Amino acid sequence: MDGKIPRARAYRAGQWHSAERPLAEEVPVAITVNGTTQAVMMATPADLPDFARGFALTEGLAQSLAEIEEVEVLAGLQGIEARLWLTEAAAGRIEARRRRSVGPVGCGLCGIESLAEALRPLPRVPGGIRITPADVADAMQALAAAQSLHELTRAVHGAGLWRPGAALVAREDVGRHNALDKLAGALALAGIAPASGAVVLTSRLSVDMVQKAAMIGAPLLIAASAPTTLAVDQATGAGITLIARARGGEFEVHSHPGRVMTQSDEDSDAA
Amino acid sequence: MDGKIPRARAYRAGQWHSAERPLAEEVPVAITVNGTTQAVMMATPADLPDFARGFALTEGLAQSLAEIEEVEVLAGLQGIEARLWLTEAAAGRIEARRRRSVGPVGCGLCGIESLAEALRPLPRVPGGIRITPADVADAMQALAAAQSLHELTRAVHGAGLWRPGAALVAREDVGRHNALDKLAGALALAGIAPASGAVVLTSRLSVDMVQKAAMIGAPLLIAASAPTTLAVDQATGAGITLIARARGGEFEVHSHPGRVMTQSDEDSDAA
Repeated sequence: MDGKIPRARAYRAGQWHSAERPLAEEVPVAITVNGTTQAVMMATPADLPDFARGFALTEGLAQSLAEIEEVEVLAGLQGIEARLWLTEAAAGRIEARRRRSVGPVGCGLCGIESLAEALRPLPRVPGGIRITPADVADAMQALAAAQSLHELTRAVHGAGLWRPGAALVAREDVGRHNALDKLAGALALAGIAPASGAVVLTSRLSVDMVQKAAMIGAPLLIAASAPTTLAVDQATGAGITLIARARGGEFEVHSHPGRVMTQSDEDSDAA
Repeated sequence: MDGKIPRARAYRAGQWHSAERPLAEEVPVAITVNGTTQAVMMATPADLPDFARGFALTEGLAQSLAEIEEVEVLAGLQGIEARLWLTEAAAGRIEARRRRSVGPVGCGLCGIESLAEALRPLPRVPGGIRITPADVADAMQALAAAQSLHELTRAVHGAGLWRPGAALVAREDVGRHNALDKLAGALALAGIAPASGAVVLTSRLSVDMVQKAAMIGAPLLIAASAPTTLAVDQATGAGITLIARARGGEFEVHSHPGRVMTQSDEDSDAA
């Protein structure tokens, strides 16, 4: 996808210049499920079938790719529709969930019920690989190298799956949730288990990133920025290893550190 | 608000260390309007009455502070409820909007209707002050100085209103939308018109930031990062001056540059 090149006036070194700067595209994308809108998000218009599939998986609309019968992407004047067609079983589950929560006005929930829904229990994420400090640095470097749109626009996030000895699978988007959703969809379609590596993110580690990772069974999350308290709490509960502030070969581990090898682990592995 | 201090293991200079690092708090906040949940957002639990008021204003739930009769903030086990009590007129408008859009299942809208709603026409923002390149740098510096929580956690966004010769009004949040909403609420309560200065943001300029700025009549937006194409389009349509990548005394103007003075403007002003 090419960034558009609108004109801007740049002020540099005390002077005005005419600037031509590639900007990241952002378009409204409506994700519909069997004909009804599920969500409208501002997104980068690339890899949208991955986005729709991944959104369905990370938000629990479909339990697996087998429940997604078809994905159509239609560009219109006001934005893009990504149409998901799910199996009857999946659509029935979604409708039952809606019936429970939709009252006569708005969502019908009082604040307390809504809060309980926002922090729903996450699936436990067992297993996964063990990585070394060098792997963390390698994963961040591989993600930086894969961010071609960010290189151009400096305005998009990236999400990738790093695996030992394999090429990084990565996706980009103006939204960090969208980048992770696109990655989730791409991995599912390629038949790559998130537990075979570590999910690596350019963004902050807020709780919703941890929730999405848990939904696709990703046991390792590495991010360039800091986590929030709630992200650490939820990762601890879900059994996810949270690695944050991964920059310049340094990082911090906030939960389940057993998946990150210490020097003595590495020595005994090598023995 | 204090950041919590959980323990993390840090890997630095090739060695493991025990680290105590303040993390940004993030809690689910349910905003209810006259008893019904309007939205649940992950937010920094500070300045929540500002957040609730600002959300009501930037999302068009209340047309002015006069339509907000009461704001209650209640902390519970699962999160925080911010209860807005609006006038009958405002509540009636919201309910009518819901009745139009809520069908038997989910939101009931097809993708095309939902896309039209996402890019609703924005109010035009006329007037506003004129600023110099030096003011842009001053505004960014004032915002950096006001980010006490970010200084501690490196994980929150800031939004401020810079005015010539006045102290910056600023708010912080883990979410960039929330930071802007908190600022909007604080300004409304203090009776400060957004058009008396420039809104300055640490975050990217996505279209939703432009939409919120237009809703509160903010004619100038300055941000540290880049805008998206859609943000530039919407700012152009709404009459908003978009100043991006404001760093180290340099910046770019993407729309309505007339509010940023050139050297010859400054010379003739001084004459």
